[in-house]
This record gives sequence, C-alpha cells and structure tokens, in this order.
Amino acid sequence: MNYSQTSENILLRENKDGAVYLTLNRPDKFNTLSEAMLTALQQELDAIAVDPAVRCVVIGAKGKGFCAGHDLREMRANPDQSYYQALFRRCSRVMQSIVALPVPVIANVQGMATAAGCQLVASCDLAIAAQSARFAVSGINVGLFCSTPAVALSRNISSKRAFDMLVSGHFIHADTALEWGLLSGVTDDADLDTAVADKVAQILSKSPAAVRFGKSMFHPQRQMALEDAYDFAGDVMAENMLSPDAGEGIDAFLAKRKPVWEQPGR
Amino acid sequence: MNYSQTSENILLRENKDGAVYLTLNRPDKFNTLSEAMLTALQQELDAIAVDPAVRCVVIGAKGKGFCAGHDLREMRANPDQSYYQALFRRCSRVMQSIVALPVPVIANVQGMATAAGCQLVASCDLAIAAQSARFAVSGINVGLFCSTPAVALSRNISSKRAFDMLVSGHFIHADTALEWGLLSGVTDDADLDTAVADKVAQILSKSPAAVRFGKSMFHPQRQMALEDAYDFAGDVMAENMLSPDAGEGIDAFLAKRKPVWEQPGR
Amino acid sequence: MNYSQTSENILLRENKDGAVYLTLNRPDKFNTLSEAMLTALQQELDAIAVDPAVRCVVIGAKGKGFCAGHDLREMRANPDQSYYQALFRRCSRVMQSIVALPVPVIANVQGMATAAGCQLVASCDLAIAAQSARFAVSGINVGLFCSTPAVALSRNISSKRAFDMLVSGHFIHADTALEWGLLSGVTDDADLDTAVADKVAQILSKSPAAVRFGKSMFHPQRQMALEDAYDFAGDVMAENMLSPDAGEGIDAFLAKRKPVWEQPGR
Repeated sequence: MNYSQTSENILLRENKDGAVYLTLNRPDKFNTLSEAMLTALQQELDAIAVDPAVRCVVIGAKGKGFCAGHDLREMRANPDQSYYQALFRRCSRVMQSIVALPVPVIANVQGMATAAGCQLVASCDLAIAAQSARFAVSGINVGLFCSTPAVALSRNISSKRAFDMLVSGHFIHADTALEWGLLSGVTDDADLDTAVADKVAQILSKSPAAVRFGKSMFHPQRQMALEDAYDFAGDVMAENMLSPDAGEGIDAFLAKRKPVWEQPGR
Repeated sequence: MNYSQTSENILLRENKDGAVYLTLNRPDKFNTLSEAMLTALQQELDAIAVDPAVRCVVIGAKGKGFCAGHDLREMRANPDQSYYQALFRRCSRVMQSIVALPVPVIANVQGMATAAGCQLVASCDLAIAAQSARFAVSGINVGLFCSTPAVALSRNISSKRAFDMLVSGHFIHADTALEWGLLSGVTDDADLDTAVADKVAQILSKSPAAVRFGKSMFHPQRQMALEDAYDFAGDVMAENMLSPDAGEGIDAFLAKRKPVWEQPGR
Repeated sequence: MNYSQTSENILLRENKDGAVYLTLNRPDKFNTLSEAMLTALQQELDAIAVDPAVRCVVIGAKGKGFCAGHDLREMRANPDQSYYQALFRRCSRVMQSIVALPVPVIANVQGMATAAGCQLVASCDLAIAAQSARFAVSGINVGLFCSTPAVALSRNISSKRAFDMLVSGHFIHADTALEWGLLSGVTDDADLDTAVADKVAQILSKSPAAVRFGKSMFHPQRQMALEDAYDFAGDVMAENMLSPDAGEGIDAFLAKRKPVWEQPGR
C-alpha cells in the first residue's frame, strides 16, 4: 500500500490494486466540504479521470461522521453573492465529476452524512453504509434549504420522500436509506470495510474496459428520450463488442474457462 | 381560528398560524372535482400564491371519501370535445398550481382517493393518510382511462406499479401507497389530524424564506438535465445564503442558540 | 385455441379471446434473442400493432429459462462493427415496439431472465414472475456491459440498484425484483399461468378503446415536461370521453348496471 497526502492531509489517497481510496480527513471538523476540501477532491478526481490504471474509486471518511456538508463558518465569513455562487458551482462540479468519472465510485459511509455530505453519497454510483450511519439534508434547520443536495437526492429517491427530508431536515437510518434506494448496501458496523472491499474486489474481477464502457453510458442515457438512449447505448455496446475483452470473455464463456482481461495502464 | 367560506361552501378555508387549511366540502358527492370545485380551488391557490403570509397549505376533505375525481354526471351532461378539453385543462391547471405554489402543500387523506382524487394526492408535496384510506385510478372501469391522473401518478411511483393501477383500476391500501412513495406518511385513523398538525408545526418552525426557496427550486430542477439542475439550484442557494434567515440560522447554530426567523407578511 | 407457428417454430403465437400469446420456443438455447428470434418477434409485433382485434399481448417462454439475452455464439461469428450496430438497433427496435404497441404487454417469466432477457421483462408494461425466477444483467461477466438493457432497467428501478446489478452481474430473486419495481406481480411457480390469465382477463374486461387510449398516452407523457405531459394527456382524455365506451361506461355506472363495451375488429 502506498499513501499520498494531498492538500495538507485533509484528503488522503491510497492506491491499491487498481482501486483508489480517497479519505476525507478532517474528523474534528466532521469532514466538512470546505474550499480546501473541495479543491483537494476536484484535483484527485481530475487526476483519476485521465488515469487508465484506475478501475474503481472509494470515497470514505475518518472519524465518527462521514461528512457534514459545507463549512458554515467559512461561508459566514464570506457574505457575498459571487462568493456563494462560485462555492456552490465548485461543489456541484465535484459532484458532477463523480458522475462523469469513467470508473465506478463507491461511498463508504461510517457515520452521519448531512447536507452536501448526503449529496456526496447520492452522487456516487454505489454506496455502502454501516448500520449506524444516518442521513439528512438538514440545511433547512439553519435557514438554508439544501438546494444543490436536492438535485442529487431527488435523482435517487422518490419525490415525496426527498421533499420530506429536505423540508424537515430529519435523519433517516441506513436501513431506510437502503429501502428507499439511496444506498446499495448496509452492513454491521464492524463489517463495513470488508463489505466495501468485497464490492471493490468484485468490480476489479470484471473487464476494466467493459466497466468503463458501462459507466460512460449509464448516467448520460438516463437523461435522454428512450429512442436517443437506445441509439447511444447501442453504439457504445457495439464498440464494447469490438474490444479484446468482449471477444475473450465470450470465448471463455463458450469454452467454460475463466477469462483473462486486458489490464490497461499497466 | 377564522373560517371563510368560498363558492357557496363547497370549499372551506381556514387560516391558522401561517397555515391555510383547504377542505373539500361536498361529502355527499364524495367531494368530486366539479367545475365549481375546480374554480374554487384555483381561486384559493391563486390567492395563496401571492400571499407572503402563507407558509404551508393543507388540502383535506369532509366525509368518508377524500375525493372521487371528476363529476361524471356533469361530464355526461356536456358531451362536447371543447368542453372536455377545457375541463381537463382546468383540472390540470389546479394540479400544476399546487406544484408551482411557493409553499409546501400537504394532502390530508381520510378516505378513498380515486381518479383525479388520487391525482390530487400525487400532486401535493407531502401526503399523510389514515390507515383505512385507499387509492385507485379507476376511470378504466367506466371506459375512461385516467390519463391526466397518470401524469402525476407516474411521477410518484414506478412505471409498472402505475400502469397496473391504471389498467386494472384496483385499489391499494395506505400502507402500500406509503411503501411505493405515493404517500409520505400513514397513521392510525384516529391520529390523522394530529399527524398532519405535527407536520405543519414542523414546517412552521423552519425559516419561511428558506422553505420558499426550496419549494420554488425542487420541482423545476427535477425536469432539468443534471448540469442545468445544478446551475439553477446553485443560484437559488446563493440567493438563499444572502437572506437574513440563513445568516441568523448559521450564527445561531454556531452559537448553539435557537434561531429567530423573519416573519414575512406579518 | 388456434396455434400458428412463425419463423420455423422458434416463436409460437396463440390467439385467444383478443389476447395474443407469444412464446419464445428455443428452450435448448435458453430462448436467446438470435437474429432469427428478433426478426420473428418484430414481425409479430408489427402485425399486432395494426390489428384492431388484439387487446392484450403476453410474452412467455418455453423451458427452464425465460430468455438468456443475445446469442453469444452468433455474435462472435460476426466480428464486425456494422454487424453489431445493426444487431443492437434491431434488438432496441423490438424493445421500443413493445413500449409503442397500442395494447398492454405482459411478461410471463418462469425462469432466468438475463441480459437482453431481463431487458425484455423491463420493457413490458406489466411483468408477472414465478417465485423461482431470477434476474440479472450479466453481460459484464463476459466483458460486455449490458448497455442497451441498462436503458430499460434504469427506467424501472432506482439508479444505485440498477448500476449495482449491471456492474456486478449478480442475480436477484423474484421477490426483490417485485420490491424494486421490475415486476408487477410474483406467484408460486405452479400458479404462474393462472396469475397471468387472471391479469389478461382483467384487461379484457375493460373497454378496449380506453385501454388503447391509455397505453398510447402512458409512456410518451413520462418523457415530457409536466406542462407538456398535461396538455397531451388532457387531449387524449378528451378524445377518450367522446368515445362510445366512455358514454356507455359512465351511464352504466350512474345507472348501477354493467357496461357493454364496443368490440373493435370483430
């Protein structure tokens, strides 16, 4: 394992077998998405986006809380419209970079995920949480409706559930978040890292090329009309069929042997 | 409490602490959405839309049924395409006015909600129902597919569930409606008004300005592509941050005291 | 009952009381969607689309598996981009023809439905499965991400659930598929055909005209902005109101008698 520390340690990066683990590391501040944290995240996401060796990303956090959203003290210190617009655009860009990343992103949620922290969970492709994790979009309690978090949340769970969370600021438990579709998995607290590692291993066992074709197709097609979505997905799939891994995978399947995938960037 | 009676009593309006309670009051007709009822509803919604003192709306009904949809007798008395087009546009305008209202709208459902009555529940931001309430889009049983109700229903619950309800006309129970996302809450029959009052009190305890920012943003962004949704929501949130309540709310939070919100229109 | 055999028996067609039963009949090949099968399906769907006597379609399959998706051996024998593009367009056209068909389509799922077989289930308006049925989008296991199946799947179930199925290739049980919204019903294995027959009988008991108005409106409006959807649905509903069946249905309802529907194409 090799650790690298970015932006004065507030975001840790670990590379392991093609997976990148990004860890929010301001536990005393509940890992708020300060300007520095957003900058560090964007920098890592931008690097990952062009790195063919990366096959999967995990976003986790140190300490008792996963992420408490924006840094309210920092926001209050800059009471100025253009500052706020720039801040929310920067945060929205981080979230959209996760969606646009060519490889799957898994949230590893060990504590409270609130406001933009809940949005971070919603923005990942997959999210596995400890049983004790809790989720809220609680800006309404400080007079600030979680508008940008609502964009991600309302694309994960049904309208009335999302609106109720947003207008009440109340917490939901991990089991409820799973039932509603905000999470893809829940585990006992003690098993969280193992469950995430198992999901990473599962993704790493697949063809890197096929996973990239899939991630690049999945989110864009959701926004298209049905016919456009099919045209787009069909073209992606035809290209995927021409990749060496599809040939190898199908041949291995027909021959009842294990496929051997190409390892890009190695 | 002050009651006002509109349109010969078929729709009651009560104002209480910034909340407006609209009550369908044709219990002997199962509160059908007759022309007169639609006109009365539109009139109240239009008035609420420009009243800065209103902070929350509850739509309830008198009697054993919540709302049985359109008035079939009235419809049959006017067998004419332009009449029907105008009628469905009027009804659709009421439903869209609920969505567009700058404050949250809660359905208080005590009995059967069928056809456009089920659409009314689907069109509200939140909906709390008694355990014994039942829901159907039953126009198919009289040879009239619930097409306009389908618009609202299919934006609340999944495709196959919505289509099955529409093509079969069958009833679902309140627990099922909650599980599917058509409702935000279910209570024992005896506790319905208390549960709704609690939800109203919860909303009234928040910043009126923040709630309005949120409602104005939530539904429009759902229809946008992700990038447009983020741009829009970010701008709304920046404006929200500049409102006195966000400053007060954050300062109060940091000082661990209770915030005091501005009370517009008072 | 009259059976007709199309395309050398690989797709059976049975007409019964206004319902058409299409049965995939290559059980030894797990009913793969070979070129021949896609052609046979398209031919039947095109014929049904212009046949006013058809009121409902059931898509079922012979043998232990429902449908295993594309024919991998056939695909590997034609390693050419234009072949693959044409193949995926042909398959996508079949799926879109189901969505566009003017009458409801029910999937009758008795075994494993994988890849484009799972897409076929997702593309139907309703889907009833045996308890032992299982569902996967498993192309990822052969290096081919299920991109076109993802189009249908992600319009049935929530984003994280769909992505997890696609990237892992894992199977879900019928109960999970029901809970997530991929199915509209699940029954004991022994009761599957009865449950499907009951659903068909329910649809056949409704006004043929009203069901057609509904099916023609339901899917297109889901892709529209709210205002456009309401305008479209309102116009369809006004036209529906002018049909003889709506008049008959409402008159029968008001007179508390059973309606008698027009039987087009008879």
